[in-house]
Amino acid sequence: MERTPQVVSLLLKNLPDGWIYQNEGGDTWTAFDIVGHYIHGEKTDWIPRMNIILCESDKRFVPFDRFAQFRESEGKTISQLLDEFAALRKENINKLKAVKLDEETLNKKGIHPQFGEVSLKELLSSWVVHDLTHINQITRVMARQYDEAVGPWKAYMGILNR
Amino acid sequence: MERTPQVVSLLLKNLPDGWIYQNEGGDTWTAFDIVGHYIHGEKTDWIPRMNIILCESDKRFVPFDRFAQFRESEGKTISQLLDEFAALRKENINKLKAVKLDEETLNKKGIHPQFGEVSLKELLSSWVVHDLTHINQITRVMARQYDEAVGPWKAYMGILNR
Repeated sequence: MERTPQVVSLLLKNLPDGWIYQNEGGDTWTAFDIVGHYIHGEKTDWIPRMNIILCESDKRFVPFDRFAQFRESEGKTISQLLDEFAALRKENINKLKAVKLDEETLNKKGIHPQFGEVSLKELLSSWVVHDLTHINQITRVMARQYDEAVGPWKAYMGILNR
Repeated sequence: MERTPQVVSLLLKNLPDGWIYQNEGGDTWTAFDIVGHYIHGEKTDWIPRMNIILCESDKRFVPFDRFAQFRESEGKTISQLLDEFAALRKENINKLKAVKLDEETLNKKGIHPQFGEVSLKELLSSWVVHDLTHINQITRVMARQYDEAVGPWKAYMGILNR
């Protein structure tokens, strides 16, 4: 998880706009939107929810806004977003390292607005998978920009046929 | 494409074996297998096929062996494979940069064993998408290792539900 901002930066930094601002059609997300979504997660999801589980008496999570990035990323460049994500993630990893994650702590619970009771262990595992999910999505959004350019190879590219 | 080996290294270097040697069940590939497949592509697919298109009189591509990595990666560590991939990619990017890729050159053709006539442009576009495809696959294979650990969040993780 410490490396995720680097991976995302390597995939996206200093590329022509076409790679950054194209989506997969309809109201799907662009790479730019996805980085904004990572940032909003750092600010309001994973570590804030850990703190609710560990420190607060009201264990109910604040609902996560899946569309906040459309507002919050406005006027920023992809390069600014990538730097912001890297800085926030670094802070959050430090906060995570400051907690002693033994079995008892990992089994503590919070209340998810849809799922009800969830453990810290599930929250932190989901953070890892969430990182991977959106790297996965970024590579798919990028690949689709070459949907036609690959010609007959499209048949071999699972990423273009989902 | 110059950055792909770095991306793959960031995803895989110095991780516990579970992340490297687990597949998605059946005869699916592990991250270790995928890096071996990238290496075999560098050796026999993209640049060698470009050379067939540009330099050879017989334009028929040598069929690509999708299973070569099971033989060729044997006895190597993931760290050796990542270094090997990085070195081969660097060489191949240099070979690519040495070619003047104008419209005429990009439209030159080779004969693919399944597809028949394909252009250099399609071959090179497919190389890009192939890179992204397997980064996509690596993140999915990794995420699946946490399939159960995420608990109810599984419902929100498209990557775990394909």
